[in-house]
Amino acid sequence: MTKPGQVYLIGAGPGDPELMTLRALRMLEAADVVVFDRLVSPEIMALAPAGARRIAVGKAPKCHTVPQDRINDILLTEARAGHTVARLKGGDPMIFGRGSEEAAHLMAHGIVVDYAPGITAAQGASCATGVPLTHRGLATGVQYVTGHRQAGQVLDLDWKRLADPATTLVVYMGVANIGQIAVGLMTEKLPGATPVLAVSRATTAAERRMVSRLDRVAADVREAGLSAPTLFIIGQVVSLYAQAPVERILERVEAHG
Amino acid sequence: MTKPGQVYLIGAGPGDPELMTLRALRMLEAADVVVFDRLVSPEIMALAPAGARRIAVGKAPKCHTVPQDRINDILLTEARAGHTVARLKGGDPMIFGRGSEEAAHLMAHGIVVDYAPGITAAQGASCATGVPLTHRGLATGVQYVTGHRQAGQVLDLDWKRLADPATTLVVYMGVANIGQIAVGLMTEKLPGATPVLAVSRATTAAERRMVSRLDRVAADVREAGLSAPTLFIIGQVVSLYAQAPVERILERVEAHG
Repeated sequence: MTKPGQVYLIGAGPGDPELMTLRALRMLEAADVVVFDRLVSPEIMALAPAGARRIAVGKAPKCHTVPQDRINDILLTEARAGHTVARLKGGDPMIFGRGSEEAAHLMAHGIVVDYAPGITAAQGASCATGVPLTHRGLATGVQYVTGHRQAGQVLDLDWKRLADPATTLVVYMGVANIGQIAVGLMTEKLPGATPVLAVSRATTAAERRMVSRLDRVAADVREAGLSAPTLFIIGQVVSLYAQAPVERILERVEAHG
Repeated sequence: MTKPGQVYLIGAGPGDPELMTLRALRMLEAADVVVFDRLVSPEIMALAPAGARRIAVGKAPKCHTVPQDRINDILLTEARAGHTVARLKGGDPMIFGRGSEEAAHLMAHGIVVDYAPGITAAQGASCATGVPLTHRGLATGVQYVTGHRQAGQVLDLDWKRLADPATTLVVYMGVANIGQIAVGLMTEKLPGATPVLAVSRATTAAERRMVSRLDRVAADVREAGLSAPTLFIIGQVVSLYAQAPVERILERVEAHG
């Protein structure tokens, strides 16, 4: 009988390979098989061993994708065959990454799982733009929610709880529903003038940014043609954007303007 | 006139040097001067160049520490003297790190600032324990708050907003006030049986963990003698703790038991 392999659940971070952790890189370099999502950049995939087998399972909106059950099966089959499997996910596997679902399936079958955390898209966007997620006097905390639901399901967010002027709200996967999200927050008295920063593909060469406000963000997103993956940072911390390093802002605007 | 230097605001991550990003390591290795907090581990400080000057400004609870204004001045003085300054902080500089306050001060004086994000203590604890911060059916989002206030100030958290059974609540710097926090949450109808994971010094050799529940956590913390820095993860995701890799749990328990 083949000795079972193991699975590394690896956060690849927001996109820039330099934002991977040292552990993530070590685990990726040790892999025989790499199972990766669409959000993992080609620059990061290039760091996998040349001889490693690559299996794309990546989820793209509105595209035919590999269902979660099938991904679980692939990971289990490869580990049982004795391979060292790197399961690469954008961001952090433990935040909107379903890493814990994959881990539960594998561990229930006796496969050893280990983790490398990853810088989230929100952290990447924050450091790229200079907009903090907390800041004394502007935001005492931060919350992450997802603005996406499966087809046919209602976006049942608790607007009253989210509409907190003292907290930074980060919305993942919200580009399709940003109009509904803005209305929900304004209905619960979050001011229409609340600043919003939209960042798509943060920390990659294709990064795009837009500063708007809650009562205009849906129209601005449409006009700018921003598409998934786009992250929204909503709150007074966005007012610090103009203080970000000027050289870098200009550089980015020229690159994408 | 000396050409001004620059400041790197670096997230050192939760403690384990392997959880630093590649960028954080590159910036640290380029430094002439390292200005560091108490929460930055000796193992990480050992990665700074041997010839770099080290300046401790680290905040310890109830100890005499360097005030924020003085830290700002040190950074500015060192950068103006032409040095490349690595400002090392535990976790991520943009989440409870006051990195944006230091950046604003420096940029107002024409100093170029650049960032390396860091894995937060919550992410480190999550990957070390196998407890995710979101999980389908258990937590649709996650929020980070701080449970600490300056001496003489009231802990004015919005209990109604935080007492959400569908969200994971992460409390930083809460060990001194965990009793008050638990009562506040239970008063707003978060069940006393809600599981709580306390992790101190996550991802370091001194890591300690405790699983409890909301109505007992204050007594359990006291009995276990947990002290700062301790992080609390509150919510149904903690019910997945038993599913974490058994070998590693045993190993940790033996190491610390």
